Amino acid sequence: MSYTIKDVAKKANVSIATVSRILNAQSGYSEKTKIRVLQVIEELGYQPNAIARGLINKRTHTIGVLFPKLSSSLVTDLLDGIEKAAGISGSSVIVCHTEYNGEKTLKYLQLLSEKRVDGIIFASEVLREEYYQFLKKSNIPIILLSTESPSFSIPHVKVNDFHAAYSAASYLIEKGHKNIGMISGNKEDMIAGKPRIEGFQKALADAHIPLSEENVVYKKGFSFPDGVEGLKELLKQFPSVTALFAASDEIAIGALSAAYHLGIKVPDELSIIGYDNLNIASMSIPPLTTVSQPLKEMGETAAGMLFKLLETGKAPNSILMPHQIIERFSVKERI
Amino acid sequence: MSYTIKDVAKKANVSIATVSRILNAQSGYSEKTKIRVLQVIEELGYQPNAIARGLINKRTHTIGVLFPKLSSSLVTDLLDGIEKAAGISGSSVIVCHTEYNGEKTLKYLQLLSEKRVDGIIFASEVLREEYYQFLKKSNIPIILLSTESPSFSIPHVKVNDFHAAYSAASYLIEKGHKNIGMISGNKEDMIAGKPRIEGFQKALADAHIPLSEENVVYKKGFSFPDGVEGLKELLKQFPSVTALFAASDEIAIGALSAAYHLGIKVPDELSIIGYDNLNIASMSIPPLTTVSQPLKEMGETAAGMLFKLLETGKAPNSILMPHQIIERFSVKERI
Repeated sequence: MSYTIKDVAKKANVSIATVSRILNAQSGYSEKTKIRVLQVIEELGYQPNAIARGLINKRTHTIGVLFPKLSSSLVTDLLDGIEKAAGISGSSVIVCHTEYNGEKTLKYLQLLSEKRVDGIIFASEVLREEYYQFLKKSNIPIILLSTESPSFSIPHVKVNDFHAAYSAASYLIEKGHKNIGMISGNKEDMIAGKPRIEGFQKALADAHIPLSEENVVYKKGFSFPDGVEGLKELLKQFPSVTALFAASDEIAIGALSAAYHLGIKVPDELSIIGYDNLNIASMSIPPLTTVSQPLKEMGETAAGMLFKLLETGKAPNSILMPHQIIERFSVKERI
Repeated sequence: MSYTIKDVAKKANVSIATVSRILNAQSGYSEKTKIRVLQVIEELGYQPNAIARGLINKRTHTIGVLFPKLSSSLVTDLLDGIEKAAGISGSSVIVCHTEYNGEKTLKYLQLLSEKRVDGIIFASEVLREEYYQFLKKSNIPIILLSTESPSFSIPHVKVNDFHAAYSAASYLIEKGHKNIGMISGNKEDMIAGKPRIEGFQKALADAHIPLSEENVVYKKGFSFPDGVEGLKELLKQFPSVTALFAASDEIAIGALSAAYHLGIKVPDELSIIGYDNLNIASMSIPPLTTVSQPLKEMGETAAGMLFKLLETGKAPNSILMPHQIIERFSVKERI
């Protein structure tokens, strides 16, 4: 049978209001009373609701994850890792889809706060001032995943985008290429835009390869159409290009598609290296050489940091994860 | 300032227990008392928590969506539609990722029940007996999206998979093909497996094209590797094949990749039509001709049905949405 708050009050010999106060973590009762009431709750197997139970344990064993976009395998891989760590710690994961929309993001932060999640993992997007203020006010622990905040001191997990882009460009240089172009995402994007451009430029500079404005095409985003348009623009401004660093796999696959339609053979006439190692990278024709982020491990690490923060109350250190080059068939040595 | 349950009780001149009973929709107070307490709650702007507020309005204005897999653009498109309808009705959407795992699915159903979502959209997976029993017991309204239940009478939104597969095969026949193969997903899958196989077979039979066990390769799933392996098997058992119906776009793109590695030209030597019209269909080389489901409209319709069910309490009719063939460059006329 199912017991009510009244049964608990009666058996514990206290008022309903006292049980309610204990469940709502308010004051006005002795420690002895609290222990007795919690014992009765356990004896009866009384389950007020998830919220109240959470209050008893001080935790709801639910965490929220905010993603700006759900389509890519990037999300699945990050989420796999988060769910693995959550499973071990006995927590459930609620996912919210913000579509890079500020109003929607705030609404979801409020919803997660109301549903009393233990903490939040904020992924792949810029943490705006207003999100930060809300989280601070609501006192909800947060970890940044695959993003970081230049303004606020919040623990994060990501790869070093500058170094990863530097490696990608160096890989093309090692393969004998000198006319190397880049299709970049938004250069104003301080997380995935600017650092990758700077890493690319530094690698060329270190190898004494002349670099001008012609080498880089700047697009608004990191999508397939950005790659299609990007390659056309790059070929116009830099016709002698023999190798391309694409700032995302979707850009790379857009460039592959544009090359196919233009009759340019990859990798014979143009080498392409991507960034992300999405599952579509192995599906493309030819299969894409790319920079891999350890997405699953990153998700697992972020969730692990959040649980540690919940247990100890101490903010963990930010972690930079290693990247690696995954060699497939879209880059050819230039002799 | 923020008010507590005590302030509400004092101002309404009732006990805390009474306020608690009203918030928890229990009995033991007059209608007049209830109205007075709700008025005070409104006057003070008292926000106990989302749950309690939900009880006042009888709704939490949150719906839950269960997806077995988040990676594909299928999910993004369905979710776009759901969120559009939810936005109009002022509701938020919580997403849970079940990974086709029964235990996990039940855990998430329980979580959504505890978080008191108004209703659930259950997408792209078989509604097992135990899920149904839980939902029935918990009295949570549910709509099936891109799936249906042969056993339980639950409203659903999907395309007619039999007809859509019939159209795909007929399209290849109209293009002059007679040696037509199929790479199928799991034939035991009553939602996306069996109906597509039967639709394919019926189209060939209606066109008086001989059909044997050689025409179809049965795989366990609908993934890229299933397509890679599937094409190899099909070529072995049916070497004269000139056109292929793939039961999913991922299978089709796997087949494209296998064909590329085997040196088989698509569409010159082999025509391929897919199923789903994922965003990767337009990204492939060559771009994939495929069967499109109106995913966004399907999501919007499912959410609309759920909100209608919540308002009226009456189960809406199931809806079959139209499919269409999207012509790209992977099918060639055979003269």
